[in-house]
Amino acid sequence: MPILVQKFGGTSVRDAICIKRVSKIAVDAQKQGFQVVVVVSAMGDTTDNLIDLARDVTTKTDPREMDLLLSTGEQISIPLVAMAIHDLGAKAISQTGLQVGILTEDRHGKARITEIRTDKLKKYLDDGNIVVIAGFQGISAATGEITTLGRGGSDTTAVALAVALGAERCDIYTDVDAVYTTDPEIVREASRLNAISYEEMLELASLGAQVLHPRSVEIAKNYKMPMRVRSSFKPNDQGTLVKGVGEMELNNPVSGVALDESQARVAIVGVPDKPGIAAKVFESLAKKNISVDMIVQSTSQDGLNEIAFTVDKDTLQDTKKIAEQIAVDIGAKKVTTDTNIAKVSIVGAGMIGRPGIAAGMFKALADSGVNIQMISTSEIKVSCVIDAKDGDKAVKAIHKAFELDKVSKETQRV
Amino acid sequence: MPILVQKFGGTSVRDAICIKRVSKIAVDAQKQGFQVVVVVSAMGDTTDNLIDLARDVTTKTDPREMDLLLSTGEQISIPLVAMAIHDLGAKAISQTGLQVGILTEDRHGKARITEIRTDKLKKYLDDGNIVVIAGFQGISAATGEITTLGRGGSDTTAVALAVALGAERCDIYTDVDAVYTTDPEIVREASRLNAISYEEMLELASLGAQVLHPRSVEIAKNYKMPMRVRSSFKPNDQGTLVKGVGEMELNNPVSGVALDESQARVAIVGVPDKPGIAAKVFESLAKKNISVDMIVQSTSQDGLNEIAFTVDKDTLQDTKKIAEQIAVDIGAKKVTTDTNIAKVSIVGAGMIGRPGIAAGMFKALADSGVNIQMISTSEIKVSCVIDAKDGDKAVKAIHKAFELDKVSKETQRV
Repeated sequence: MPILVQKFGGTSVRDAICIKRVSKIAVDAQKQGFQVVVVVSAMGDTTDNLIDLARDVTTKTDPREMDLLLSTGEQISIPLVAMAIHDLGAKAISQTGLQVGILTEDRHGKARITEIRTDKLKKYLDDGNIVVIAGFQGISAATGEITTLGRGGSDTTAVALAVALGAERCDIYTDVDAVYTTDPEIVREASRLNAISYEEMLELASLGAQVLHPRSVEIAKNYKMPMRVRSSFKPNDQGTLVKGVGEMELNNPVSGVALDESQARVAIVGVPDKPGIAAKVFESLAKKNISVDMIVQSTSQDGLNEIAFTVDKDTLQDTKKIAEQIAVDIGAKKVTTDTNIAKVSIVGAGMIGRPGIAAGMFKALADSGVNIQMISTSEIKVSCVIDAKDGDKAVKAIHKAFELDKVSKETQRV
Repeated sequence: MPILVQKFGGTSVRDAICIKRVSKIAVDAQKQGFQVVVVVSAMGDTTDNLIDLARDVTTKTDPREMDLLLSTGEQISIPLVAMAIHDLGAKAISQTGLQVGILTEDRHGKARITEIRTDKLKKYLDDGNIVVIAGFQGISAATGEITTLGRGGSDTTAVALAVALGAERCDIYTDVDAVYTTDPEIVREASRLNAISYEEMLELASLGAQVLHPRSVEIAKNYKMPMRVRSSFKPNDQGTLVKGVGEMELNNPVSGVALDESQARVAIVGVPDKPGIAAKVFESLAKKNISVDMIVQSTSQDGLNEIAFTVDKDTLQDTKKIAEQIAVDIGAKKVTTDTNIAKVSIVGAGMIGRPGIAAGMFKALADSGVNIQMISTSEIKVSCVIDAKDGDKAVKAIHKAFELDKVSKETQRV
């Protein structure tokens, strides 16, 4: 029998009514002839509430203890979903990450899955059970301690399970009904995408579109596991299928426009033009586990360079300290920071081999009077850092320029 | 180094302030030279809230899933206590029942502890850790599934751990500061007891005094493990020591008066006087896991007997059904039930070998106009079922008759 993995996020299991709705979706899939594995997140705000509790008792949380604490969130959801499934007359059994055997690195708070044991799981499925598995958690293969996968980890659990079980598909139920060409709250004409490639989804996920966790898309891409983004509140809506770029009909060069307001810009100004300086800067940041997104190095006529980059606002204080130390070490003039920026990006597998797409974006921005501060490009993405206040205006202008409001009709056929 | 086990109930860890208070008590004990094991319950009303959640999603809860759900309550408390201890500069590690190795029967909701693994625990203690253990839970030795010990199970966890580790003492921190001669809310003159024997405590615990779970006292008695009942809100108060009857100075025949309003009375009326009938009644009830407390069989002159007994009000509906079936089978006339009863009891190891104590109780009741419906006695206990409305009056009269308001001064010396 084909296996279907269904993942339900915190919003989809936030209360008893939602849990019953989700349980019916799982039972319906079983009736359609699937062996069903359900992965659930913690109910609603549970995880945030647990973090608040910890902050109330301690000034410095301990990673091992935090994982034990946070893993209770999903451990509460799973028996509730299992019992709601029982109530519909189907067989179900719940399993924590530890029980089912989701093995991870020995690292707390952000562990990666290293192996999934499927023997017990397959036995439960063959016995006719819907198996309800706690997302976001596992155990360290080395120590047997409970670990968590970090925010968005339940998506990763679901896709990794789908791969390990050779599932037919992995459905990610979230609080949006599909992937859109851009945020419908910014552009009312945003179009639904019936399909999107892993590569585009990956760029969109990384860009803060907040639909799927990038790591889950990465795994799906590597193992060619089809995913569907859909809503538990509209179970008959097929949502958006995420699949290989080779299987896509690429009618449009651009699939989507994303806005990311979570970053800050850091610039080291007046840097002497000597080799090895950029390496020194970014090695120091990497050592402190600070992820850098865009990097732009420019030369001015006086022989002094500027190295500018963007980081997550959360890490700005640490980044600034490190950058200031480096500035002293390398004889640079000063460090400036700007939190008042936004990053607008276009993503599209269809732009490969079609020149002029980036230029079209720059023109759309220029025509609406938006000044570009930094530019970064990849094969299927162009990103521009602009002033924060221009964010919405930029997205609207680009969306219109690439006629994304007309996408839907074409992709309906996919 | 001597080992001290400290158990903190739900009230003692109900919020961040309480958790910090409890952590200080543990750290102080470590500073006094103990290796400290802390057992904690779920915070405040957590367990009740989890039960409510389950009832919202299902009409028929599943014992295995309920245990997985309820075990999260303690799993939330333990990392919080461990981190609060870290904050005080001491080493601590938290352990679920599964992690530390508290093995139980393969029975959900009410499992008994069969074995406690102490190797890991001793290693953590020898490394200087305060080990914070989730009460109320374990794993089935047969299946590896998470089990719970039933209400009051954290007391049992604590005493069983104390026995397994050869601890010097087991301190049970609860929301009362000591054991009293009776409920101070009924009798203002109730006296504190500085010491009480296991046997008396056991009778009091079973009688609904709600200070200690009877199973924990039973284990302490069997292994001669000294326990202290004390309050986390008054850490300098030594509370009440529970110890062997041989070590007690028995100045008073009666140690306490207890009132239990949780029972109902069932009577099978008009029972033919044939052998084996009582056995049939109580075997049928035992098969349905219904615990019967008092039993009184009386013969009337027409050769027909009455078999009356008390059960917990929660089980009255089931009991009534079974009793009615039996009544038909044995040719009895009818079954009557009464929920409007109370059971008042006196307990005292000092009554052994002192005749007239029971008579003193009956006289006190008669003098205050309280009618006795049923009587049951053991070596150290006399219980009477009376009308529910007479409960408080009966307790006051008995407390006064045995001069229990004067107990304190004598037991101060213990």
